[in-house]
Amino acid sequence: MSYPKVALIGLGLIASSMFWAMRRAGMDSHVTGYARSQDTRDTARRIGLCDEIVDTAEDAVRGADLVVLAVPVGAMGRVAQAIGPCLKPGCSITDVGSVKAAVIEQVRPHLPEGVNFVPAHPMAGTEHSGPEAGFAQLFDNRWCLIVPDGASDEATERLEAYWQALGANTERMDVAHHDQVCAVVSHIPHLIAYTMVGVADDLSRVSDQEVIKFSAAGFRDFTRIAASDPTMWRDVFMNNKDATLEILGRFTEELFALQRCIRTGDGDTLHDYFTRTRGIRRGIVEAGQDTDAPDFGRGGKKD
Amino acid sequence: MSYPKVALIGLGLIASSMFWAMRRAGMDSHVTGYARSQDTRDTARRIGLCDEIVDTAEDAVRGADLVVLAVPVGAMGRVAQAIGPCLKPGCSITDVGSVKAAVIEQVRPHLPEGVNFVPAHPMAGTEHSGPEAGFAQLFDNRWCLIVPDGASDEATERLEAYWQALGANTERMDVAHHDQVCAVVSHIPHLIAYTMVGVADDLSRVSDQEVIKFSAAGFRDFTRIAASDPTMWRDVFMNNKDATLEILGRFTEELFALQRCIRTGDGDTLHDYFTRTRGIRRGIVEAGQDTDAPDFGRGGKKD
Ligand SMILES: NC(=O)c1ccc[n+]([C@@H]2O[C@H](COP(=O)([O-])OP(=O)(O)OC[C@H]3O[C@@H](n4cnc5c(N)ncnc54)[C@H](OP(=O)(O)O)[C@@H]3O)[C@@H](O)[C@H]2O)c1
Ligand SMILES: NC(=O)c1ccc[n+]([C@@H]2O[C@H](COP(=O)([O-])OP(=O)(O)OC[C@H]3O[C@@H](n4cnc5c(N)ncnc54)[C@H](OP(=O)(O)O)[C@@H]3O)[C@@H](O)[C@H]2O)c1
Repeated sequence: MSYPKVALIGLGLIASSMFWAMRRAGMDSHVTGYARSQDTRDTARRIGLCDEIVDTAEDAVRGADLVVLAVPVGAMGRVAQAIGPCLKPGCSITDVGSVKAAVIEQVRPHLPEGVNFVPAHPMAGTEHSGPEAGFAQLFDNRWCLIVPDGASDEATERLEAYWQALGANTERMDVAHHDQVCAVVSHIPHLIAYTMVGVADDLSRVSDQEVIKFSAAGFRDFTRIAASDPTMWRDVFMNNKDATLEILGRFTEELFALQRCIRTGDGDTLHDYFTRTRGIRRGIVEAGQDTDAPDFGRGGKKD
Repeated sequence: MSYPKVALIGLGLIASSMFWAMRRAGMDSHVTGYARSQDTRDTARRIGLCDEIVDTAEDAVRGADLVVLAVPVGAMGRVAQAIGPCLKPGCSITDVGSVKAAVIEQVRPHLPEGVNFVPAHPMAGTEHSGPEAGFAQLFDNRWCLIVPDGASDEATERLEAYWQALGANTERMDVAHHDQVCAVVSHIPHLIAYTMVGVADDLSRVSDQEVIKFSAAGFRDFTRIAASDPTMWRDVFMNNKDATLEILGRFTEELFALQRCIRTGDGDTLHDYFTRTRGIRRGIVEAGQDTDAPDFGRGGKKD
């Protein structure tokens, strides 16, 4: 059972991919879209994104059975505040934010009684953003984490069925655990990649031109991940502080231990460490979670 | 002008790929191979690697016009010591080590007068190792850095032509600069990936099973790079101490600054940082150094 009327608030990579995936799935929902800037709304109209593009978030959500908040994490609260009074009683509202505790804290107070809030997080993306970045295959075989956080079973199951129709696998998770898992598998890897690229960019003795030329030796994929949208990632770190700082603390601790091994010439410890980390890789390959071409979490390919 | 007789010392990923690439190029060199273990020599004979597999390094190099040291960086010195007295006067000797200053320091003292030592470093690899890991395409369009370090122009040009025939682009570089460039584009990215995987493996609140399941969100490619051979990487860090420690120092410094931004809620600085790092990515794409599928430096694909 799909949703007859869907409102997409924010028309970037995720929302536009959702729209194309809905069309591919043959859903006959009427989809209304809204984005903050005239520019994005014009583009959306030009490329046929959504059945209708409207000029205010309030207009977009009126009468909708499902409202999807697809804006940066830091903007979720303000959007919820604006649309709260216009939500149809009994409708479902979800978000696609990469962080869950902070989004729930910022969104929930603005929602009227009788509305079903079912937070979710499709774990799929590319380094591109905006209304033209989306494609129908983005969520295929990727995980969409559903964080019911008190939502009814019925509303939760309906959203799960929706995401599955878009191509994703779904899994329920509690709020705090979601934010921890994502800190490990996504947020800190991104921060580290940004840092590595920043360091390389900043060296005087190795030129940018050389870094670019020889980047294929390992560095290159850090640059892809570090080309992701700055606003999105700023908001992730501002809104998942505790979990990211905890993992970061562990990371620097281990890095210092390895640094010390290099300095003191303790090759045995390095060798043990490099051996131990092979197990996880084996698990990923055995679980069928990797293919020949690593792609930093970008399963689908735009064609 | 190729080399009539070539000796490959060490029969792992790099040496076996060199052999298949020589065959693909139609070189009619006679290739003799040697590896330390009976096991590897047996495998090499079984799969038809080299024209002849011999049981000592000394036998392998006798009469050779080109000797290739393709063993871990930490083993280069001992191998050079064993074969030094058996080298044909006027022959060329090269290595494929990922580090250059330490290899040169360890190898040169064992070489007789009149032998041309031309260190080199093909920047290509996969996370697999051993005699069966090689394939002819490994070096295609990848860089092979040539570090003449005093070798004659004639010997250097001959080695360059050889690597180009194997599919690589060549570039000359001086020793210290080579080790610095590789610390940035390869060694530190690998150390960081190993560390991230080690941290994930070590958490109590997020299980290995979860890390594996949701690895596609960014973490996964760190595991591929961190599945590389432990001996090779131990030797790299033990033998490129100064350059790796310097880059690591810069890395932790920047990481601390970003960590501080997260802690204090300084979103503007984070946003600026995440914006700045996009430039290098643009450079890489413009230079044609990346394709759609990031592969952590593993250009060729085994089929
Ligand atoms: N990209 C990923 O890899 C990924 C993966 C999983 C989840 N997510 C989450 O999905 C959400 C959207 O990401 P995306 O990649 O689709 O972003 P995007 O391509 O950058 O699009 C963001 C959209 O939000 C609008 N917007 C930005 N700031 C706003 C504000 N202050 N108020 C109202 N609207 C605003 C933008 O409007 P204008 O175009 O008019 O500026 C744009 O339409 C984020 O919460 C992110 O955490 C992203
Ligand atoms: N893999 C890469 O990504 C890459 C890229 C560029 C350069 N390199 C460099 O290429 C060299 C070889 O790497 P590889 O990937 O080909 O390694 P590999 O597949 O692990 O093979 C190493 C070979 O060296 C032999 N060997 C190991 N330890 C030895 C010792 N102490 N004495 C004598 N022989 C020994 C091994 O013999 P057994 O099989 O009998 O043990 C094996 O034949 C290294 O210096 C590495 O730094 C590697």
